Amino acid sequence: MFVLGIDPGLTTTGYGVVGRFPALKPVAAGVIRTRVEDTIAMRLRDLYDSLLSLIQEHQPEVMAIEQVFTNVNRQTAIAVGRAAGVAILAAAQSGIAVFEYTPTAVKSAVTGDGAAGKQAVQTMVARRLNLKAAPQPADAADALAVAICHLQSLQIPAGVLR
Amino acid sequence: MFVLGIDPGLTTTGYGVVGRFPALKPVAAGVIRTRVEDTIAMRLRDLYDSLLSLIQEHQPEVMAIEQVFTNVNRQTAIAVGRAAGVAILAAAQSGIAVFEYTPTAVKSAVTGDGAAGKQAVQTMVARRLNLKAAPQPADAADALAVAICHLQSLQIPAGVLR
Repeated sequence: MFVLGIDPGLTTTGYGVVGRFPALKPVAAGVIRTRVEDTIAMRLRDLYDSLLSLIQEHQPEVMAIEQVFTNVNRQTAIAVGRAAGVAILAAAQSGIAVFEYTPTAVKSAVTGDGAAGKQAVQTMVARRLNLKAAPQPADAADALAVAICHLQSLQIPAGVLR
Repeated sequence: MFVLGIDPGLTTTGYGVVGRFPALKPVAAGVIRTRVEDTIAMRLRDLYDSLLSLIQEHQPEVMAIEQVFTNVNRQTAIAVGRAAGVAILAAAQSGIAVFEYTPTAVKSAVTGDGAAGKQAVQTMVARRLNLKAAPQPADAADALAVAICHLQSLQIPAGVLR
């Protein structure tokens, strides 16, 4: 069971692939960046192409995506919404299910505290995946956290994204 | 010169194709609906497929898309952002440029009044396109308004969506 965690963004989208054997194992983590000097259309296309490549390479069964933050400004929410739309589309076209988790659910799943800080999440991601340190940059670690959240929530009822 | 106007939404996306010869001429107008009982992933995929078909059928040179409304709630903004992301992606992959206009710019271009009501916009869309009445439903007429806005703004400097 492989899960592709996604922390969506127009400029930087974090991704992290985690497997369960049954211990959690990190398979890949990193970020997809798009060029700020390109048009939105080109950037969304580049993000989409990169995500399709990732899915093809790692063949995850599920995409777990972090929900747009509630505390960002409107312009950022729109940009993240567009990036998330393209990510969800890439999953749909690859035939993999999409689950969405709020930042609070992710923090709670990884650290046991829904109000945990960035640093606490990173420390726990490293510990849960048996790594010396959390992968850099932070968006990659955040994406791993979403994947961990999904693998953990398989034990409790969860609904597909509607 | 054909322009595909888009009024994006997850449940209902309005579209309208307008040509200029040099008089404005409506070529097609309607709505793409997705099923509320489907997952978000399926709905975004259906929207994307329908948009690609529309672009293939009408071969517009440009997509003109209405910006997410500023006065909707956060959940709606996210849903519209996702739909817009998928629409912009469809344009990018078809090699057509994307321009974005605020609701105020669209109303102003079509009626001369940036604060015009829905009914005034519809009446003016019908008049500008030499139609007896504005196409139904309203989202189709709104999409035609965005296309008209773009064709009109070609006379003034406009930037591609960044």
